[in-house]
Amino acid sequence: MQFSSSLLENAVNEFAKLPGIGKKTALRLVLHLLKQEASSVQGFGETIVKMRDEIKFCQRCYNVADADICSICANSMRKQEIICVVENIRDVIAIESTQQYNGIYHVLGGIISPLDGVGPDQLNIDPLINRIQKEEIQEIIFALSPNIQGDTTIYYIQKKLKAAPIKITTIARGIAFGGELEYADEMTLARSITNRMPVENYMSK
Amino acid sequence: MQFSSSLLENAVNEFAKLPGIGKKTALRLVLHLLKQEASSVQGFGETIVKMRDEIKFCQRCYNVADADICSICANSMRKQEIICVVENIRDVIAIESTQQYNGIYHVLGGIISPLDGVGPDQLNIDPLINRIQKEEIQEIIFALSPNIQGDTTIYYIQKKLKAAPIKITTIARGIAFGGELEYADEMTLARSITNRMPVENYMSK
Repeated sequence: MQFSSSLLENAVNEFAKLPGIGKKTALRLVLHLLKQEASSVQGFGETIVKMRDEIKFCQRCYNVADADICSICANSMRKQEIICVVENIRDVIAIESTQQYNGIYHVLGGIISPLDGVGPDQLNIDPLINRIQKEEIQEIIFALSPNIQGDTTIYYIQKKLKAAPIKITTIARGIAFGGELEYADEMTLARSITNRMPVENYMSK
Repeated sequence: MQFSSSLLENAVNEFAKLPGIGKKTALRLVLHLLKQEASSVQGFGETIVKMRDEIKFCQRCYNVADADICSICANSMRKQEIICVVENIRDVIAIESTQQYNGIYHVLGGIISPLDGVGPDQLNIDPLINRIQKEEIQEIIFALSPNIQGDTTIYYIQKKLKAAPIKITTIARGIAFGGELEYADEMTLARSITNRMPVENYMSK
């Protein structure tokens, strides 16, 4: 692409650095911003920079936070004795959006994946073990990706927690709501048969 | 979506204002920026704001510019006697990227479209007429969208220019390179037959 303005070119290049944004999309976004009020573009820029500069990670659960402790951990209405263990911040947002969970979280920052060079030491696993020893935790719910890496991570943490007198669960796996049986992979279908549930449990959900 | 950080939420909302960016994509972009160095995110924000604040429109051709006159108009290597009339800045970038055109431009800022409430007065048509009267223009090439609005705009400007002793052309319309005949619409195919060209012209391109 040939630009007659280096200001325009620089802005397009900045947008094109973002994942999934190519040069043409970047140009479209920049030309859109060019049409907006200067004050609104300034608001855009400042909000992004402020977010990066001021955002913190919760010292307890490693979720993103505006303060040292995130708003979920600080909320006394939530059950502080149930921890949901997730891979990343996006999973917290996804579970929060269901409005079905009233406990607190622990963000691992990834899952054990030797092929990608991610071992237990790179993750927030030790802080989780410490929390369970210090706080009065009754249940840990694993909400990790349903694959080999997720299962490995669950197995690793579970082994470390063997001594602790707590309930360890994982979110249910099975056929997605609205999903068609014939398109489900064999592994999921097999597990959903093995872990079948009484109809009364299902209907009450 | 439920966010535990208002900093994160604000940043996501700002990205989600951009055209074609939904909440999920916005979150993906913000989480990407969160992983980058603070200085690089600051560079991103500043570049965008600087672009909006400092960019100018060329006083001669209405293209985007870093100064009062754009780099294309200011380039003495380009033929100042040929003007290519385009609808918007994006068209300038598209034509420049072909590296086949060595004249200068005139950006109309749209095309005549009564249904959208765009008449000749909203466009940079008068400045174009002025330029043709003042500058020594030999040829005007219309590179407008091949539709009714584009044709109306060409017709309107052409009528205004009747007295001027200049050559008026339009970019060739026909079957796109690599396009298949059977998928071309009738109008395009009909025009490409009416405006057929000698094979020697074609082969030399």
